[in-house]
Amino acid sequence: MRGRNHLVIMAGGAGTRFWPMSTQDNPKQFVDVMGCGRTLLQLTYDRFGGIVPVENVWVVTSAKYADKVYEQLPDIPVGNVLLEPCRRNTAPCIAYVSWKIKSVDPKANIVVTPSDHIVVNVPEFQRVVRSALGFVAESDAIVTLGMKPNRPETGYGYIQADLSYSTARNKEIYRVDSFKEKPDVDTARKYIMQKNFFWNAGIFIWNVSTIVNAFRVYQPALSAIFEDMLPVYGTEAEQKLIDERFPLCENISVDYAILEKAEEIYVFPAEFGWSDLGTWGSLLQNMEKDSYGNACTGSSISLYETSGSVVHTDTLRRVVVQGLEGFIVAEKDGTLLICRLSEEQRIRQFSE
Amino acid sequence: MRGRNHLVIMAGGAGTRFWPMSTQDNPKQFVDVMGCGRTLLQLTYDRFGGIVPVENVWVVTSAKYADKVYEQLPDIPVGNVLLEPCRRNTAPCIAYVSWKIKSVDPKANIVVTPSDHIVVNVPEFQRVVRSALGFVAESDAIVTLGMKPNRPETGYGYIQADLSYSTARNKEIYRVDSFKEKPDVDTARKYIMQKNFFWNAGIFIWNVSTIVNAFRVYQPALSAIFEDMLPVYGTEAEQKLIDERFPLCENISVDYAILEKAEEIYVFPAEFGWSDLGTWGSLLQNMEKDSYGNACTGSSISLYETSGSVVHTDTLRRVVVQGLEGFIVAEKDGTLLICRLSEEQRIRQFSE
Repeated sequence: MRGRNHLVIMAGGAGTRFWPMSTQDNPKQFVDVMGCGRTLLQLTYDRFGGIVPVENVWVVTSAKYADKVYEQLPDIPVGNVLLEPCRRNTAPCIAYVSWKIKSVDPKANIVVTPSDHIVVNVPEFQRVVRSALGFVAESDAIVTLGMKPNRPETGYGYIQADLSYSTARNKEIYRVDSFKEKPDVDTARKYIMQKNFFWNAGIFIWNVSTIVNAFRVYQPALSAIFEDMLPVYGTEAEQKLIDERFPLCENISVDYAILEKAEEIYVFPAEFGWSDLGTWGSLLQNMEKDSYGNACTGSSISLYETSGSVVHTDTLRRVVVQGLEGFIVAEKDGTLLICRLSEEQRIRQFSE
Repeated sequence: MRGRNHLVIMAGGAGTRFWPMSTQDNPKQFVDVMGCGRTLLQLTYDRFGGIVPVENVWVVTSAKYADKVYEQLPDIPVGNVLLEPCRRNTAPCIAYVSWKIKSVDPKANIVVTPSDHIVVNVPEFQRVVRSALGFVAESDAIVTLGMKPNRPETGYGYIQADLSYSTARNKEIYRVDSFKEKPDVDTARKYIMQKNFFWNAGIFIWNVSTIVNAFRVYQPALSAIFEDMLPVYGTEAEQKLIDERFPLCENISVDYAILEKAEEIYVFPAEFGWSDLGTWGSLLQNMEKDSYGNACTGSSISLYETSGSVVHTDTLRRVVVQGLEGFIVAEKDGTLLICRLSEEQRIRQFSE
């Protein structure tokens, strides 16, 4: 009995906002961005320990990152690492892995998570995930996790919940009224004044029948591609067929493809110190800091008259920084970035 | 006939003010600090081209830098590189090389120069040096070069000249009244208000008899050490004896040992764009700058909203700097320094 709980880690992103620490060749999920000895992918895997048996952990990633996944998660079966021949956003990724899981466990309960976020309060995170997995084991619900907002963040999508009544079987789970795209700051302020708006963390819980049926209803073309492949999952023909067919999938997010269309969507409001680490600023916020608000990762870093800065070095053996306030100093494989934190949205441009 | 003009390059310094670009293992004279493809030692050698034949070029350096000198100045005879077993300031260095030159050319005219300064106007420099060498060929004068000051610099010693009359044989050469130690800024201001104060560039011109006799008179103990060795100069025994005796020499500068004591000292006031490159600030001043006053040495350096800064990188392949004003960014062999130019006097402390 391998257990009914499955974990899907989406590890195909190629974030360049953390350049040069994160590059297309080595995106941030494969980097020890916290300087804790584990990469974000490993931390993601770790936080599901005890909830999902290792043989039920699935990673969907780009073919070019396969070796990184094998290396960083050596315990999971090689066959559980699904390789996308090209990037097609989250809907094709989730469709592929859902049919694949269905082929081995038609009664699977699944939690889907990004690979490059962090969670500070892991016990609370585990409680929430277990609770949601228990819920979807007994219902055809699509459950999202809603992060209680503490600031008018414009970098996240919001979930508007109907808090007037919770589900009968789980008092912490509510119906979703609507999904909201990333708002401007005035709209974000209005959202957080109300108590029924939550950040969309991109973590989903459902059973395999529910998600497969949702794809069949709302994305029939996408469904046909993976439905057709049922005979080949787990055979040698699988990768070859995926390499041919995956590029034909529409480039579409699961939010847009399913969540915003489906009727029975639920949200589990939660608070477990979550961040998508979308910016250097959020990384700084989530790292251990010295008394001047600096966070350092690397060997032998000395700071003088420096505050509110993040210093992240990889190959440098010795770093001395004097006189910086609110800066990013990042070095990776011989590439150095020095940039005001307030200008970090330009990093993508700098990296070109 | 090998010519009577000899050049002595003192290349034993271990400047750490340019850390990490310059280190005890690789001091600044061996570094291409200007980013021009030649090290300061090579630029020093180059600027005497046509004045001194290559077989008359002598380099005195620390034994540990011997290979750097052989590599950077491959044309000069290996036997012309004199190796100090330990650092003993300029007087023992000059005494050693003077007796050594005397042993091969008792009528030598000598110009002594540091190896880590720069000269912008080389033709004028050459004119001055040739003129001074011609002068000492016919007199027992000790000639210093005096740089016309353009600011109340507190980092240099000053030479006070008696400008009321020049020598009969060279109208540009004057008697020295006195040598002044590095002044405070008020004193420096007073000096430059007068017209007879010049920076001491540490460049000396004399004939070998004059300097050897001066050592005999003012530094008899030092003289005895190198006089005794006359039979062994150029033999296999020389280095062994030097290794034994050099450490016995007093640690003393030629300024203090000879110049401030001797009677007949002359100064040749000159203006040829000289700098001792004693600070990152002076390096910046002397390098080619972009329109925002930045000077860069290294590969693929991109600057945004950056001004008055010097970026000097060695092993980094790519550098992006945003938002720095008046900073030093220096990297060498995996060591990175970021520091305000105004705080550069603390670099020695940072490097420890």
